[in-house]
Order: sequence, then structure tokens, then C-alpha cells
Amino acid sequence: MKVLFTFKIKDEQLEKLKVDFPEIQFDFNNKVNTAPVEDFEVIVTYGEDISTEVLDRATSLKWLMVASAGVEKMPLAEIAAKGIIISNVRGIHKTPMAETALAHILSLKRALPVLAEQQKRKEWNTKVRQTELRGSTALILGPGAIGSEMGRLLQAFGVRTIGCNYSGNPAQYMDDTIQFDELLSRLPEADIVLSVLPSTAKTKGLLTESHFKAMKETAIFMNFGRGDLVKEAVLVEALKNEEIGHAVLDVFETEPLPAESELWSLSNIIISPHVSSHSGKYIERALEFFTGNLKKWQRGDKDLINLINPVKGY
Amino acid sequence: MKVLFTFKIKDEQLEKLKVDFPEIQFDFNNKVNTAPVEDFEVIVTYGEDISTEVLDRATSLKWLMVASAGVEKMPLAEIAAKGIIISNVRGIHKTPMAETALAHILSLKRALPVLAEQQKRKEWNTKVRQTELRGSTALILGPGAIGSEMGRLLQAFGVRTIGCNYSGNPAQYMDDTIQFDELLSRLPEADIVLSVLPSTAKTKGLLTESHFKAMKETAIFMNFGRGDLVKEAVLVEALKNEEIGHAVLDVFETEPLPAESELWSLSNIIISPHVSSHSGKYIERALEFFTGNLKKWQRGDKDLINLINPVKGY
Repeated sequence: MKVLFTFKIKDEQLEKLKVDFPEIQFDFNNKVNTAPVEDFEVIVTYGEDISTEVLDRATSLKWLMVASAGVEKMPLAEIAAKGIIISNVRGIHKTPMAETALAHILSLKRALPVLAEQQKRKEWNTKVRQTELRGSTALILGPGAIGSEMGRLLQAFGVRTIGCNYSGNPAQYMDDTIQFDELLSRLPEADIVLSVLPSTAKTKGLLTESHFKAMKETAIFMNFGRGDLVKEAVLVEALKNEEIGHAVLDVFETEPLPAESELWSLSNIIISPHVSSHSGKYIERALEFFTGNLKKWQRGDKDLINLINPVKGY
Repeated sequence: MKVLFTFKIKDEQLEKLKVDFPEIQFDFNNKVNTAPVEDFEVIVTYGEDISTEVLDRATSLKWLMVASAGVEKMPLAEIAAKGIIISNVRGIHKTPMAETALAHILSLKRALPVLAEQQKRKEWNTKVRQTELRGSTALILGPGAIGSEMGRLLQAFGVRTIGCNYSGNPAQYMDDTIQFDELLSRLPEADIVLSVLPSTAKTKGLLTESHFKAMKETAIFMNFGRGDLVKEAVLVEALKNEEIGHAVLDVFETEPLPAESELWSLSNIIISPHVSSHSGKYIERALEFFTGNLKKWQRGDKDLINLINPVKGY
């Protein structure tokens, strides 16, 4: 059995794979669009290099292991049609993303950006408006692995958490869970509105003008999911009109965010270049997901961890 | 019985005091050095306005309620000699200070200051060095009410906590507690070294050159206690020589930090103008401490909450 990696791993990580799976041949090629792929039963990829053309040539392919959380840019219809099993590393991001979310929330509450500007001017000014996180309410759109980890940490800070998902089924570390259609009526309670929703037919454009008008004037809106949750123009208006206090955006309709975007120049926004999940420990963790599944695969167990339904897209 | 406040409280807070304590007369005067003070059994103060001269004139004074956590600038010897009971609001700061500490730690780990500079330049650059807090070790100097609250939150983030106090007695939310004389040998374990120690004879100058040389090159040193814990010159050298990764200082040998201090210009420092404890809820909470003690006082119970031993200074 042959496995193709389309990204590099460290030498010691490869050595460990060879020791743990002596009967498997591991190859590496980061130019999968021109590389021979017909012999590989498994391809391990970040996802974006898998085109329909690659799929057509990968005649032995049975399992696509995607070392990424989002798969919406992949040719899912073709993957489904060919019966290729696809799994991802959903949950790999939960620690860095939850840490990033809390970093931004606490930084704004404790006015760290204001203090940083004062420091540059060598200015000792204690009259800085700082607030407390304790006693706040956070509404989390998409309380899955990542959203729940954020909920766990927020609860530790004495924050009330409201999860919001399509089903309304209770989610971990949420004091309350609501459905998408209850969102508008519950937004006025939230000091923090935080989305980690993936991009699906149900989440695209979910937030509109009326949602931002329903939020508190002091609310912090955070998008750590996908940029198509809300039109950029809607965000720009809400921020210019100070309908909310701050936005913290890690994802955008167009990425990289174009230099001409109005978002760059607004005063009540924090722009993060889609790095909330970055971590020096990423590949190490991705390999843990992969090897766990590879053991299952070897013994014929196709019920892999983090299987994706290519029709649903998650 | 007459009570003098030397700082303002809100009208509605005063009304509540009058309702709860109808037999007590509450006066306000923020110029205690010139005000008549001889009739007051209780003075409620932030502390710094109580001189020996005021004490000599305050012939009815039996209880000094200090709405502050540090009392080292007060004439403690005279207070002790006159048998005046003194209490403070130790613990009032724990929520804002713990939130501030986590804000700074997470901000540095997730590189928020770097991202803020990029945003100003409208620069989309994802190659930013970010690390995770999970799996770190924090050494907390002074694991009392505030230090333990920081420990509780750090543990929620998966951080191992080592408390360090004079006695070595176990402290809450510390995985391990060590004594001052074990500090030097345990510093190499710590990714975060965080002091909330008060200023006492035992803590002044506790940290020296050798302590900073013992820390990890990547360590974050945070002083949220008192500035005399370490000489400014020692800090400047440690930071210039990159013996540690970052310092986050909320307190300084001289406050306000003079414009000519070298600390202002260092690249690996965060300077906060002694605001880590600031919160819009401060006076509300101080009054909770005060009214709890005032009820005790009325029934002759002198075993007040947060009594200070003026000889020890804490």
C-alpha cells in the first residue's frame, strides 16, 4: 500500500511513520498536479491541490486525508461520485483558535491596543477605559469542537454562553443552545458574538443588516469561521455607524483582504490575516489524526475519525 | 457614630448606605489634610492621604478602612502605636488583574501586537510567529487571592502552575508550591514568571541578575505587584541582553515611569501604567467589603474581613 503526502513533514516524523507502519510506502510530492498519482491508495493533503484532473488520474485513490478543517474549496461532488472516502482534522484548531479568541476578547476588554499606543508616545496615562469580561454573555455561532472549547474557557472567566446551531441540539459548555431562527431575537443579550461556522449553504449570508442592528452598541463581533457568513458591505456599515463596539475578523469574503477594502481603515476593527488557528504544533497534531485513522484503515475499518460527508460538505 | 469618606461615591451608593445604616452619619471630604477629622470613628480612604499629622488630629479614629490593596505608603508604625484597626480590600482586584494577566499572556503568545502593526500598514502577512499557551508552566510569585485567581484561569488553559511564597505552604490552584529560597533553582522550568507580591521587607529586591539569567530565553516576566521587587537597571540589562523573551510591567520603581527611563524604548517590553486592577466596578466592590465590615463593627465584632497587621504590613 502506498501513501502520498503533498506537503512536507519533518525527518523525525517520517522516521516514526516508517517504524509504526513498516509495510506501507510513504512518498512525498508537493506538485500533485503534475506528479504521478495513479498508484496511491491514500493521499494526505492540505486540500487545495486536489483538482478534478488529479482525481481523474488517481485511479487507485480510496481515501483523501485532508490536514485542514475546511474542505469547501475541494471538488466534493467528484469525490462523492467516485466513492472516495474523505476525512479531515476537525478539532485540530481548537486550542490555538480558542486561545486566539480569548486573546482578542481580553485585549479589547483590558484596552491593550490603547495602552500600546500610549507606550509608543512614552505616555503614562491611567485614564483608560477598561472593562471586565466576568459577567458577560457570549453567543457562539457553531458550538462544535472549536466553539465548545471557546465556551469552556469563557465559562471559566464567568461568562454565560449561548450556543447557536442549525438543530438547536444542546452543545458542550453552552449554558443554553438555540437554533438559527432564534438568533435575531437573542442577539440583544450578547456582549460577544463569535462565529466559528463553516461555509455551507445554510451559513452563507446568515448575518444581515438586521442582525447587526439587533446587537448591543458595545458588542464585540468576531468571525473566526468563514468570510461568506456576512457581506463585507454589511460589516462596513455596521462598524461605520457604530451599531456595534468592535469587530475582530480573521476571515473575509475575499482573502487576502484587498488593500482597497474599507475595512482596513476603520477604527473599531481588528484585522487578523486568517491566522487564528496557526500553531507550531500543527503538523504534529495532524499526524496524530492521520496515524489513528491509518491504523483503522489497515484493519479494514472504514469508520474513520472526522469522516466528511462530501454531499453535506462537513 | 460618624464615618468619613475621603473619596467620592455615587449618589445612589450613598443613599443605599443611609438606608442600610440609618443610625450612622456619613460625611465626605477629599481634603483630609485640612479637614476636621476629630469626630470620626471610621475613615474610609484610598490610603495615601492619611499622614501622621492627620492621625494626630483624628482623636476618635478607631478603624481605617482602606479601599486599596497596598498599604505600604501609609504610616503603619503610628497606626500600630495608636491601636487603630486597619483593614483593606485585599482580593478586590482579583478579577480585573487576572483578566489583565491572561490578556497580556495570550496577546503575546498569539502575536497580537505584531498583527496590529501589520494592520496599520494594510499588510496581509500570515507568516507571523505564534505559539500556544497550553502546555506551558507558570511560576506565580505570591499565590494569594489574586495569584490564585490567575492560577485558576491558567490551569483552565492547560498551564502547570507553581506558586512561590515565603512559607512554602500549599496555595489554591497551584500544582506545586515552593519557598522563596527554592526560586532560583525552579525558574528554569517557567515559561511565565508572574509576580503579584506586595512590597515588604522580604520582597524588596527579591529578584536579581541571577534570577533573570536562570529564566528561559523565551520566558515572559510579568510584574503586577510592586516595582521594588527588582531594580530597574537589572530589568533593563536582562531585556537588552535578551536573557528573557518579554517583560510585561504594570508597576515600576518610580511611578509614573519617568520619560527618560530606558524601559520605554526597549522592543521586548509591554508597559502598562499601573492599571491592571482598574475596573468600572471598583467602588461598588469596595463598598461591599466596607458594609460587610461595618455590620460587624456595629455589633462590636472587631475581627474584620481583611484585617491588616500594621507591623507586618499585610
